Amino acid sequence: MSLLRHIRACNTYRPERFVPLLMGETRVGLVRRDNAAVLKRFPLAFNVDAETVHIVAPGDATAVSGALDEVVEELVEEGIVSKWRNEVFTVAPRWGETPLFSLDRGAVSFFGVRAYGVHLNGYLHDDGQLKLWIGRRNPTKLVAPGKLDNLVAGGIGGGMGAAETLKKEAEEEASIPDALVAKAHAVGAITYKMEVPQGLRDDVLFLYELEVPAGFEPRNTDGEIVEFMLMEAGAVLARVRDSDDFKFNVTLTVIDFALRHGLLTAEDADYLPLVIGLHRGGDY
Amino acid sequence: MSLLRHIRACNTYRPERFVPLLMGETRVGLVRRDNAAVLKRFPLAFNVDAETVHIVAPGDATAVSGALDEVVEELVEEGIVSKWRNEVFTVAPRWGETPLFSLDRGAVSFFGVRAYGVHLNGYLHDDGQLKLWIGRRNPTKLVAPGKLDNLVAGGIGGGMGAAETLKKEAEEEASIPDALVAKAHAVGAITYKMEVPQGLRDDVLFLYELEVPAGFEPRNTDGEIVEFMLMEAGAVLARVRDSDDFKFNVTLTVIDFALRHGLLTAEDADYLPLVIGLHRGGDY
Repeated sequence: MSLLRHIRACNTYRPERFVPLLMGETRVGLVRRDNAAVLKRFPLAFNVDAETVHIVAPGDATAVSGALDEVVEELVEEGIVSKWRNEVFTVAPRWGETPLFSLDRGAVSFFGVRAYGVHLNGYLHDDGQLKLWIGRRNPTKLVAPGKLDNLVAGGIGGGMGAAETLKKEAEEEASIPDALVAKAHAVGAITYKMEVPQGLRDDVLFLYELEVPAGFEPRNTDGEIVEFMLMEAGAVLARVRDSDDFKFNVTLTVIDFALRHGLLTAEDADYLPLVIGLHRGGDY
Repeated sequence: MSLLRHIRACNTYRPERFVPLLMGETRVGLVRRDNAAVLKRFPLAFNVDAETVHIVAPGDATAVSGALDEVVEELVEEGIVSKWRNEVFTVAPRWGETPLFSLDRGAVSFFGVRAYGVHLNGYLHDDGQLKLWIGRRNPTKLVAPGKLDNLVAGGIGGGMGAAETLKKEAEEEASIPDALVAKAHAVGAITYKMEVPQGLRDDVLFLYELEVPAGFEPRNTDGEIVEFMLMEAGAVLARVRDSDDFKFNVTLTVIDFALRHGLLTAEDADYLPLVIGLHRGGDY
C-alpha cells in the first residue's frame, strides 16, 4: 500500500459541498450545505442564504458563545450534533488572534471551524536503531478507538497555548515530568481538511519531538492510552504504509517524522507529494 | 522585518500572466504570455495558441532536445534568453519520471519548467549553542552574487539523482569527504514559484542536514564560495529576518531549519503561514 493514501484520506474536503461561516467579513468556519439549511431555523443566531452563513447573534464573545450554545443544545437533542464533549474550543480568525467566540468540541466539525492540536513524537537511539514510543488508544474512546497513537497528543482547548497544552497532555497521557517535556522542541505543523459525518475537520496539528532517555517509560494516567510500545522507526513507518492500525491523523505525524529524519528521501516514490500533502489544508 | 516577506518574495507567480507548456496532454512548464508570443516564430517546434504552448517538435527525447536547442540558440543570439549555462537540466512530467527532453539551464526559466536543487545545512552543537556553517557566494556569480548561502547547494542537472548531486556538490563546494556527507540525511523539500525577468522559476529544493564534527572546516574548491563562517543559529535566523544578506531561496532553507529545530514555535507570529508557505509552489 502507499503512504499517500493517508494524505488523501485526511484531505477529502470538497469545497462545493460547503459554504463559508462568516462573522462580519471574517470567515471562521465552513458549513456543509445541509447543515446550513438546518441553521435557517435559528434566525436570531444565524442569517443563512444560498452561499453563506452569517453569525448574527449580537454582543461580545461571551454573548455570542451563549447564543451558539443554545443552538448546539437543540441540535444535540435532535441528534444532529452527536454529543457534548464538555471541552471548549475557542474560535479566532487566525491562530494567535483574539477569540471571537467559543464552541463545545462536539460541535466543532458541524460548523467546520478550525481546530488545533499538539502531537509529540518521543524517540531515542537504542542499539544503533531509531525507535519511537507508540501508544494504543483506549477501545472506549469516541474517536479512533483502539488505534495506535503518538506518545502524546491532544486538542488545544479553551484559550490554552500550544506549549501549555503539550505540557498538560504529556503529564496526563504519559506521565512525562515537566523537566523532560521542557526538552521537547517544535518541529513544524501539518494541516488537513477532512469531511466527516457531522461536517468538516479543518485541523492544524502542531508537531513536537522529544529525545527521551534510555530508561524512560511512559505511563498513562487519564485512561486514554492502554499501552505504550517502543518500536523501531522504520517498522512504524512500514506499519503506517501497510495497515490501518494508526489513528487517521497520526499517520501524517509519522510521515512527517520520517521525512525529517531521512527515513524517506528524494529517491522514494511519492516523496514530493508527501512533503507537499502534509500542508494541504492550509489555505486559511 | 518579518520572515514571511521571504516567502512572499519567492512566491510572486501570477497564473494569469502564464500559459501552460504542454507535451501531448502533459504540462511540463509555464510560459509567460510575451514569451509564448516569441515562440510563435518557431512553428516546427511549437504550436502556440491563446491559452497554450504545445511542443510539436517530432521524435524521441534526443530529437526534441535538439529542436529546442536550436530555438534557444536563436533566442540567446537575440538576447531574449540571457546566456548559455552549459549545464543541462532534464524535464520530466514529475520528479522521478522518465525525462521527455533536456534544456540548457540558461533557458529553464524562459520555459518555466520545474527545476530541482539540493541544499545542505551543516550544523553542530558547540558550547551549548546550535551553530550553522554559512558560505558567502562569489561576487562574480550570475545569480545572487556575494550573498550568504548554505554549506552546500546546487542544481540537479543532467539526469543525476538528488543524493548523487549532494555528494558531488559537497565535494566541490565544501570539500566534505564522502564518509562525512554519507551521514547527511534528508529532511524534506520546499517549493516556490517566482517570477523572474526571463520568465518563471518553478523550484523544488530537496533539503538535507548534516551534524558536522567539532574539528570540521569546509573549504571551497570550485570558486563558487569565497568564505565559510560558523554562526550561531539564532543569529542566522535574526539576520535572515532583518537583512537581505542571504540568497533569496536560502532564506527559506534557514526558516525550514528553524522550524524543525524549535527556533520558531507556535507562540511566534506567522508560525503557520511560514510552515504552510514553504510549500506554496507545490501544486504540480
